[in-house]
Amino acid sequence: MIVKGDDGSVVDQLHPDRGDIEAAAERVGQRVRRTPIFRLEAGVLGADGQISLKLELLQHTGSFKPRGAFNRALSARAPTSGLIAASGGNHGLAVAHVARVLGLPAEVFVPTSSSAVKVSRLRRYGAIVTVRGDYYADAWAASQERAQATGALVVHAYDGFETVSGQGTVAWELDKQLSDIDTVLVAVGGGGLIGGIASWYAGHAKVVAVEPERIPTLAAALQAGRPVDVEVGGVAADSLGAKRIGEVGYAAAVTAGVQSVLVSDDAIIAARQLLWDELRIAAEHGGAAALAALTSGAYRPSPNERVVVILCGSNTDPRDLLEA
Amino acid sequence: MIVKGDDGSVVDQLHPDRGDIEAAAERVGQRVRRTPIFRLEAGVLGADGQISLKLELLQHTGSFKPRGAFNRALSARAPTSGLIAASGGNHGLAVAHVARVLGLPAEVFVPTSSSAVKVSRLRRYGAIVTVRGDYYADAWAASQERAQATGALVVHAYDGFETVSGQGTVAWELDKQLSDIDTVLVAVGGGGLIGGIASWYAGHAKVVAVEPERIPTLAAALQAGRPVDVEVGGVAADSLGAKRIGEVGYAAAVTAGVQSVLVSDDAIIAARQLLWDELRIAAEHGGAAALAALTSGAYRPSPNERVVVILCGSNTDPRDLLEA
Repeated sequence: MIVKGDDGSVVDQLHPDRGDIEAAAERVGQRVRRTPIFRLEAGVLGADGQISLKLELLQHTGSFKPRGAFNRALSARAPTSGLIAASGGNHGLAVAHVARVLGLPAEVFVPTSSSAVKVSRLRRYGAIVTVRGDYYADAWAASQERAQATGALVVHAYDGFETVSGQGTVAWELDKQLSDIDTVLVAVGGGGLIGGIASWYAGHAKVVAVEPERIPTLAAALQAGRPVDVEVGGVAADSLGAKRIGEVGYAAAVTAGVQSVLVSDDAIIAARQLLWDELRIAAEHGGAAALAALTSGAYRPSPNERVVVILCGSNTDPRDLLEA
Repeated sequence: MIVKGDDGSVVDQLHPDRGDIEAAAERVGQRVRRTPIFRLEAGVLGADGQISLKLELLQHTGSFKPRGAFNRALSARAPTSGLIAASGGNHGLAVAHVARVLGLPAEVFVPTSSSAVKVSRLRRYGAIVTVRGDYYADAWAASQERAQATGALVVHAYDGFETVSGQGTVAWELDKQLSDIDTVLVAVGGGGLIGGIASWYAGHAKVVAVEPERIPTLAAALQAGRPVDVEVGGVAADSLGAKRIGEVGYAAAVTAGVQSVLVSDDAIIAARQLLWDELRIAAEHGGAAALAALTSGAYRPSPNERVVVILCGSNTDPRDLLEA
């Protein structure tokens, strides 16, 4: 969506276009992994269509998040005070990783509800971790205050133009790997990944936005006509648990006319277990959410529809996968 | 290795050639998955070379074994009494899967030492499971006796021409995915996979055979000049624990001049954990053994060497992966 002034110049651009995403891909370069495509045989998921998986969960730090964080960090002149973020989850890990690779310090603010395991993982990636407040919003406010004091570059988890452009490189890469696809299924949390994917595929392929019923940030926004707060809960809250979809992701989703689909927690749990039982892929609940749309029948492809499911995260405790 | 008679006709062929493997690939067709290639960035494993992983652990039943079992079953006129095998592990699962797909009954003989979990998994795949004897050899003998009685088609775990030809389709497929490679690293147990890979790549690429120090079936055979018995032990015994390398695999390894490399159990454990920590891939110990040659320095590629590591199995209990 590009808003032009009277003289035809661009005065506002609410979400990235293909050029922005190509620029992000160029900027980030080899710092992210080209993750493999896995074409599935007919019937394995009990769904029609020609299904392929994009194994983005094999990305550095176990999720797609370094793409956006690298693009954000490399788009700005990174200050010596480094990068700062608020996140006890995948985004925090990505920022810590990106800072380490770029030789910058990283500060990550997390709420007290973050698990000790995640905090220790963040510290192993070399970040300074500050635990502040009971809720994410508290940690976020503290990180903003700290950024004002230090001048560190704030890397938003999902609602930044460069972050979304960077996440869009998943689609840019996928397009090179599989040029003829009809449909992409993407899990939605704060809207960074869907924003990037929708920005790339708008007008080229159908984009299906899959959300847990208990965190319907995009569905609620589409209904209200603007981003609105939702309750956050359920099994995928640790990775998809944003209260409200970002402006950039929302704008991209509207432009692309994405199809919004909801899945139950039970469907997500079943899809995650199926990934392990049938394919030996260990995904986190949020990372299995997009697949759950297929396995639960919430999205039913036609027999010859060429569908790609983005498996976007694997920061899971493998001990709670059942041996099958 | 082809033995010719005086008139130039082939009188004996000790291992498959490329034509046999191409025929196997044609025969098996879409019944096996084309497993993805994952190119790694420089340095992630602490080893030189341009490293790619062949994710064969995403194959049906979690290992490469269905390739050989399908080829064996489809090469013969399968009797109504179906398929029979002795294996409490990956081979048994593969035979049960192949029989189910082909609409045949399957009987699998396992020793009492097989875990209840594996027996229950075999039954879930639809096999009739008979527990017989304390050791694999007892279960094998019982399966042979039973096959005599029923006429079922015996599918050997590794030492059959069709089995080895089928495992060779891993290399046939890899060759299509990455045509320019210098070196392939393969784990060795009974010699089915190394036999197929060496038969394909002989004279075309270097094949490195990686074995646990505690199950050196190929190393011992190369030293003795023929297959000999070894002690079986260590962490990878459940998948690589053959007492003696098969004749077919041995002949292929000799023809190809494979390089034999040994790795310690500690190196295998570390490689398996690294796969999870850095790449979010859950492999079994045997499946991580080939990688251990790189991560331990037992095999050191040159800086520009194009190396493919076959990750061949993931039938592991994910609960003993540490969360990282």
